[in-house]
Amino acid sequence: MINPSLLEIEEENTFSKASRLVREYKEAHPEKDVLSLGIGDVSCPIVPPVIEAMHKAVDELSDMEHFSGYGSYYGIDSLRQTILDHEYSSFGFTRDEIFVSDGTKTDSTSILELFSPEAKVLVGDPMYPIYRNGALALSRRVYEAPLDENFVMEIPEEHYDIIYICSPSNPCGNAYSREDLQRWVNYALKEKAVIVYDNVYACFIQSDVPKSIYEIEGAKECAVELRSFSKVASFTGLRCSYYVLPKAIDTKYWKERTINRFNGASYIAQKGAEAVFLPESQRLIQENIRHYHENISYLRESFVELGYEVHGGIDAPYLWIRCPKDMGSWECFDWFLKEMDIIIVPGIIFGRRGDGYFRVSGLGTIQNSQKIMERLKRHEEGR
Amino acid sequence: MINPSLLEIEEENTFSKASRLVREYKEAHPEKDVLSLGIGDVSCPIVPPVIEAMHKAVDELSDMEHFSGYGSYYGIDSLRQTILDHEYSSFGFTRDEIFVSDGTKTDSTSILELFSPEAKVLVGDPMYPIYRNGALALSRRVYEAPLDENFVMEIPEEHYDIIYICSPSNPCGNAYSREDLQRWVNYALKEKAVIVYDNVYACFIQSDVPKSIYEIEGAKECAVELRSFSKVASFTGLRCSYYVLPKAIDTKYWKERTINRFNGASYIAQKGAEAVFLPESQRLIQENIRHYHENISYLRESFVELGYEVHGGIDAPYLWIRCPKDMGSWECFDWFLKEMDIIIVPGIIFGRRGDGYFRVSGLGTIQNSQKIMERLKRHEEGR
Repeated sequence: MINPSLLEIEEENTFSKASRLVREYKEAHPEKDVLSLGIGDVSCPIVPPVIEAMHKAVDELSDMEHFSGYGSYYGIDSLRQTILDHEYSSFGFTRDEIFVSDGTKTDSTSILELFSPEAKVLVGDPMYPIYRNGALALSRRVYEAPLDENFVMEIPEEHYDIIYICSPSNPCGNAYSREDLQRWVNYALKEKAVIVYDNVYACFIQSDVPKSIYEIEGAKECAVELRSFSKVASFTGLRCSYYVLPKAIDTKYWKERTINRFNGASYIAQKGAEAVFLPESQRLIQENIRHYHENISYLRESFVELGYEVHGGIDAPYLWIRCPKDMGSWECFDWFLKEMDIIIVPGIIFGRRGDGYFRVSGLGTIQNSQKIMERLKRHEEGR
Repeated sequence: MINPSLLEIEEENTFSKASRLVREYKEAHPEKDVLSLGIGDVSCPIVPPVIEAMHKAVDELSDMEHFSGYGSYYGIDSLRQTILDHEYSSFGFTRDEIFVSDGTKTDSTSILELFSPEAKVLVGDPMYPIYRNGALALSRRVYEAPLDENFVMEIPEEHYDIIYICSPSNPCGNAYSREDLQRWVNYALKEKAVIVYDNVYACFIQSDVPKSIYEIEGAKECAVELRSFSKVASFTGLRCSYYVLPKAIDTKYWKERTINRFNGASYIAQKGAEAVFLPESQRLIQENIRHYHENISYLRESFVELGYEVHGGIDAPYLWIRCPKDMGSWECFDWFLKEMDIIIVPGIIFGRRGDGYFRVSGLGTIQNSQKIMERLKRHEEGR
């Protein structure tokens, strides 16, 4: 009676398989100093004003005068208001359209519960694999669209109901331009489709691309935008995210669904999230982002110097690199691991068309990156 | 394109409607001192050792040497081990069968993602309405079974795939006996069905009924047990729960599902949860539980004294009371609110067969209860 859709999640090409191979390699070679370019986690700690706000929240839970029990299903009102004021008021949204949650991974596919189970779901190939696999866990029909030469999902000729766009992109490291997004919004309006716009890397944008899909005309009628505190504020372990569900799509049924499926994000994480918007937090967070940009630039230049075909890394913390010597993704993963004790992420994890590429993360430390790139250079010179 | 199942969640009989009516009444009568017997939230704060553990966890997030980012999808290993050691080791489970999550409300219906969307889901009528409504959000086919005279769900003659049992029961305040549970386990084994056993009120059990469904022979082959830190440790705002998914049902596909749908409970909440099992925490928590028992006993005796037909309140923090004068649930709700400024929960919220009853919560303070019961007595005397 196991959900047959779960059987479609192919273990053959997953992060789990990559982790298992690394673990087996480390166990077989305990003396090796294995270094990773694969880490999607952050390397900057949480900034002091946020830490302080969370200590205060912990204290509040120790006496009934300040205790917070069950909160709003949709997030603490003051946090929703703060998000609205800082990120979305210029688009004419109201607080009622902002929902706080406990992580974009969950949100990205839980939103499917709002729509008919018959909805045809379109994801990119390659793209963050959670959309496909999460949609399968929810027994949705998932289809894959190829990317064009700029790693932008091609507009299909067929009808789809739900379109996933991840921009700035994991794994390709690019961001969709205004024109790219306008084409997709036009498609969605024509097809009465909904775009699920995963914008968790917005804080890394440096070039002149939209920082929100709502900069695009018509997007308020067809797009849900997902954001997170994970990367920008190092909340990866804390779990706090938010999304905009415009009234034009629905809020009534979604509220009823959410009352019945969720009890709010953790109070302490939400109070921390509120403090993320304090001016001093924002100043410190910008320093962290600068650190990540320096790191990814260094990695980018180093790989280019070594003759690799490198994409991304300007508006997102990822590089999307073609495997050398026409290797497939897993072969390349093996080569890096066994020849150099370096972990990369095989592109095929993100879809079949990702084969022949690998992903490098810029979220690590520059010290780690320098060590890795020196090792790679020595290896190339030694050939 | 709204999920048609969501339209089946009837706003007519929901907590939301009750809250709205209360809000409207308070707005129309700002001078009234409205008191509640409906509160499902706790009235004891979090105990000091847990507070201390959470402060430590907050501090860890402030420097990279101790920072915890993305954690295990299934919970921190040490927490899973602690839960296993304290609650489940005697049943022969392993840590791999314990999953930590962010709330039983979500868990109770997310577990349906493991099973075929064609699965026939059976809930009790009356029963905690989240199972029905959450299953609808997941587009499952939901059926309702009546309860017998002891408020135990009757064994059906037909086949069902997933059976929800809430024991100790919300809203009926009773707990299933060994014999009741053995009958249900036998049914599940015969029908190859799965029991989702919501056991979040286990800490309130006083009489000789099973504290876990795994005390029942055969349950390890057919039952998932859900537990939470919400009521026992006042984690209602923190969000941390756990459940046992026995290997005999599945853990492989569930792990793959969970990797793709969840990123773990909040680190601080999990570190707090670990400290719940410290001896000093347990001692203080038992004092809180004693407080709740005193409160519910007082309420029980007071209602009995006034001639009400009262059920439950021994093994669960709820009383299930027949409405006086053959009133329907909403009529009775209105009567308490408008005549006495007292909030009760209409039984029909828990299912059509709950009409004619109301639920009283014992999770409030004894001071509040005394004030309410004195008001009720005065009103009865004045008639």
